[in-house]
Amino acid sequence: MDGQLHGDAVRVGGDARQRYHDSRGYGRPLDGNEIELSRVEAAHLLFRGDLDSVDGLGFREFFVESTRERERFGLRFLVYADLRGRGFYLSPAREGWPGSMDSTDSAKPVDSTDTAVTHDFVVYPRGKGPRDGAIEYRVRVIGERRAVGADELVAAASADESGFVLAVVDEESELTYFDASLAAASFDGGTDFEPSGSVEGTLLSDRVLCWDAPDDLYERGFYGQPLDGRDAKVDGGLQLSLVEAAALAADGTLVLGTDDDYETIVERGREVEGERFDRRLRVYATLRSRGVVPKTGYKFGADFRTYDAVKSVDDLGHSEHLIRVLRPDHVFAPRDLSLDVRLAGGVRKRMVFALTDADGTIEWLSVARLKP
Amino acid sequence: MDGQLHGDAVRVGGDARQRYHDSRGYGRPLDGNEIELSRVEAAHLLFRGDLDSVDGLGFREFFVESTRERERFGLRFLVYADLRGRGFYLSPAREGWPGSMDSTDSAKPVDSTDTAVTHDFVVYPRGKGPRDGAIEYRVRVIGERRAVGADELVAAASADESGFVLAVVDEESELTYFDASLAAASFDGGTDFEPSGSVEGTLLSDRVLCWDAPDDLYERGFYGQPLDGRDAKVDGGLQLSLVEAAALAADGTLVLGTDDDYETIVERGREVEGERFDRRLRVYATLRSRGVVPKTGYKFGADFRTYDAVKSVDDLGHSEHLIRVLRPDHVFAPRDLSLDVRLAGGVRKRMVFALTDADGTIEWLSVARLKP
Repeated sequence: MDGQLHGDAVRVGGDARQRYHDSRGYGRPLDGNEIELSRVEAAHLLFRGDLDSVDGLGFREFFVESTRERERFGLRFLVYADLRGRGFYLSPAREGWPGSMDSTDSAKPVDSTDTAVTHDFVVYPRGKGPRDGAIEYRVRVIGERRAVGADELVAAASADESGFVLAVVDEESELTYFDASLAAASFDGGTDFEPSGSVEGTLLSDRVLCWDAPDDLYERGFYGQPLDGRDAKVDGGLQLSLVEAAALAADGTLVLGTDDDYETIVERGREVEGERFDRRLRVYATLRSRGVVPKTGYKFGADFRTYDAVKSVDDLGHSEHLIRVLRPDHVFAPRDLSLDVRLAGGVRKRMVFALTDADGTIEWLSVARLKP
Repeated sequence: MDGQLHGDAVRVGGDARQRYHDSRGYGRPLDGNEIELSRVEAAHLLFRGDLDSVDGLGFREFFVESTRERERFGLRFLVYADLRGRGFYLSPAREGWPGSMDSTDSAKPVDSTDTAVTHDFVVYPRGKGPRDGAIEYRVRVIGERRAVGADELVAAASADESGFVLAVVDEESELTYFDASLAAASFDGGTDFEPSGSVEGTLLSDRVLCWDAPDDLYERGFYGQPLDGRDAKVDGGLQLSLVEAAALAADGTLVLGTDDDYETIVERGREVEGERFDRRLRVYATLRSRGVVPKTGYKFGADFRTYDAVKSVDDLGHSEHLIRVLRPDHVFAPRDLSLDVRLAGGVRKRMVFALTDADGTIEWLSVARLKP
């Protein structure tokens, strides 16, 4: 069989509808038995040897010509072929094509300018096709050198109930899939500790040292880190980070004896880490208010690791999430995203980006590696 | 026993020499039985209850006063106490103190300005002390908010044959130790593949597609990634990254048919990733020239992963290193260092920072987590 380019689609007649669309999910039906294939679909049929030519071109020539016309064609072809190889049927995300949504905003034609693209493909559940009405993933394809705005991921993740997947093609043409979703509901913890009474502290450089802190502040509330050790013969006190100290000073639990202890600590925080301190404190306090305990994520290169339900430090479970606090206008280099998500996966935690200005709402953007 | 501050050291008389220095490695001897302790050592003896006071101050008061005078005192105390708790004896790195080196450059007094510090402590081998003449580690202490220049790490790692260790105190006062060393000798691989003949390719966007490449280019040389799959009925070609393509064009193995194929590829590389491309290519080509095979490290958030000896892609061993290419004047945020090193450790690879300008030499700075 041979196809002909019409605009940016390839038309195939004969028994194409039965052969390619009805039985194997390629293209969209036109009148009669004719169908229209996207360039990527046509290239895949050429690649499989199921189509002989498009306007007389074989796979190689058609692939090269298409890549020259559409910069991301090669990337999209790799992802299309990979998902097909994994047993999925998928369609290009174009208005009027199978799986496309009603709203003209939600799925721009894939070959419009790169930035306008929400997603490139709709992928059907395994075993299902374009006529079954269900969508498993919406997939966007990027090269590893293309930066992605956090706001783009949030918009895409919240656009629809089907999963949003970012497929990154690295410089050697290998693929990584990231599942991006909003994770607000994940932070509903079961830690019910409330500090009783007040505790005195001394602000020292970039931490606060408390003397004579009640034991449960650490042992049940998991605030701070005791300054002790096997050699200690004196009570070395409880060391609090500045975010912990600010959170405890906010309701008067921690007392430094200054005019405004909370403001004193926040100012010190800003001195040592700038406005980032306000954003981190906001995330810290929000998590605490939801019964989730954040502790430093430094060893994992993150801002926090979190525990959903702390009863006692002696019986601490595995921490569930790693959190990195970012501005809402943050732009990810795909390589950095890969680093964070890979590390989190390796330690069996879920990576969440807490996107916030110092005084806005927090979007909890969860990103995980997906093996479709 | 009680001590008295003299300048920045604490003097203790009586039987202090036998009690603290000879038997347990604290301080340095003065005349007779008197010894001089650094503030950190004195604080540790107060903490242990072995010293009663310094100028009438107990542990708490002395600790707070010392931290107010020396911003990093608290951090150094934590590291000192931790290493003592792990069974090491250590001395402050000060001229004229035990373990100090002859050169006045190599160990500035710890309480001089922060930037002039090369290291804070000399740590003796476990079971040894200041009078045994051997040094296991030189340790520098920083807070997690203090950025560290790559050049500082290179200078410290190459200053002496003893190991250089960076001890990072995070915001919650937990410690992470990083061992930094120069790793040039690690890259002496056993891959002896030489391409035979030439191969034709087409430059497409940010990769090169080769048709009819000899099988051994991929299978023995581990160049590129075949465009194939279980569905393929046609030869889809071999996809090369731009660094691979440039390296193969340099000696004429890859032929695009332009006036200067190498320059054409390098220019495309610069278009898509700026001058970073030149630095990455330099590292790639250097590794290849040493018989080491670099492949993309994208999945690990690095520039390359490396294989010391590739005989056949079908029988590929575990890759040994992750490499991130940085400028020699790069400054690490300790949190980023933690992220890279933790990830590498989790996948049983060693993290190496290849520090290079496009046309200078390459310093191979290896950083690993250390559990002393």
